[in-house]
Amino acid sequence: MVSWRGFRFGRSSTAGQRPRPAPRPIPVSRVELGDFTPDLDVYLGLVAYFQLALFESLGHASSLAPSTRTKALTGVIAASTLERHKAMLTLIERADKDASDVMQPHADLIDDFQRRTAGRDWHEAMLATYVAAGLLDDVFVRLADGLPGDYRDRVVAGLEVDAESDETAIVAELSLGIGADPRLASRLALWGRRLVGDTLLVARAAIAASHQSADDERLEPVFTELIAAHTRRMDALGLTA
Amino acid sequence: MVSWRGFRFGRSSTAGQRPRPAPRPIPVSRVELGDFTPDLDVYLGLVAYFQLALFESLGHASSLAPSTRTKALTGVIAASTLERHKAMLTLIERADKDASDVMQPHADLIDDFQRRTAGRDWHEAMLATYVAAGLLDDVFVRLADGLPGDYRDRVVAGLEVDAESDETAIVAELSLGIGADPRLASRLALWGRRLVGDTLLVARAAIAASHQSADDERLEPVFTELIAAHTRRMDALGLTA
Repeated sequence: MVSWRGFRFGRSSTAGQRPRPAPRPIPVSRVELGDFTPDLDVYLGLVAYFQLALFESLGHASSLAPSTRTKALTGVIAASTLERHKAMLTLIERADKDASDVMQPHADLIDDFQRRTAGRDWHEAMLATYVAAGLLDDVFVRLADGLPGDYRDRVVAGLEVDAESDETAIVAELSLGIGADPRLASRLALWGRRLVGDTLLVARAAIAASHQSADDERLEPVFTELIAAHTRRMDALGLTA
Repeated sequence: MVSWRGFRFGRSSTAGQRPRPAPRPIPVSRVELGDFTPDLDVYLGLVAYFQLALFESLGHASSLAPSTRTKALTGVIAASTLERHKAMLTLIERADKDASDVMQPHADLIDDFQRRTAGRDWHEAMLATYVAAGLLDDVFVRLADGLPGDYRDRVVAGLEVDAESDETAIVAELSLGIGADPRLASRLALWGRRLVGDTLLVARAAIAASHQSADDERLEPVFTELIAAHTRRMDALGLTA
């Protein structure tokens, strides 16, 4: 399992080497992402822009598709990604905001994420989608608990559009490739380790939408859970996280 | 106005230079695309693959977008393009065919079209979408008249998804850029002339789905109309076709 500590989350390892005080009887309380109250505009802008970037990455993946079948699958995933994006646009409009205005502040971070996770072939590109969409949808859904009014339910409904069937379809297709080529398996396992680090940087930005530092040590169990879920997603492909 | 004769449609100019027989009193009858009966699988495979390729091109366009606003617009257009693609997939499934199987035979032609019309920046890429979607949707809708059963109505309904609002949005955004930069205007006018030639090659393939040669001279008026519609689309941008 990949430790999230390697990815600049939580206390730094340097801090960990300092002499620690004796353990105190009162435990540090744990916080959940749902305890935070994200700024609605910042949250919706990030989620909307992330889905838009994912569409763009899927367009690139489509151009790398090794067959018409895999290209068609890429189109199906892109279609539901754009439906999720549009669901967020609808909510941004409902909040009387301009979509470009609220997405713009996240462009640098997400564009950089996208460049780093583009992948060198179709399988790498699709693994990036699978890992990022899986982990970040999880973060987005948890954070949505703190949104005002009925935004939580609307956001979750929007994010759930075809998410499960997309995941199943990607797993099936990647597993086919991995089963047929052991070298692909080891390459994708390595790639997955890099992806989780880059993806957690976006998760960190999502948490910052609540004016909350992702370095808060009370978030450690949350990140441990996110990584555990990532490990299960890699397991589903027969890959070691 | 661009003459379609320059683009390898209809009689070649060499043939035109031969001594012609005296005109006969019986006029050559005109045929309409709707008079043809396209092979259902070939037709649906081509239309579905074309929309899939358009999505891929829009993903590339999105990566070239000069602003978050134009990137968001690209996402909106890609979403409806993929909805049109999915409408065709539904019809392919209804006809008990495999989507990859019926799309595959068109891959080489469309992939080549896509490479040639990718564009060097966002404006060129979006003009390509505007010109190709406009001209080819026109061809696809006309040819649909000859489809069996209720496929015509279903295809047309599928192709019409947001087509008009997409066109309006692209025209508005391209016009903004053209108005602000006269050099962009002349570059796009040139680019439009190249695009129409490449796009007509796809139109020709669509006609071939009816085992009908696009070289049939009775199709000349049809191509003249397609070019006239293209000219009107360029006019809408203030560009000379």
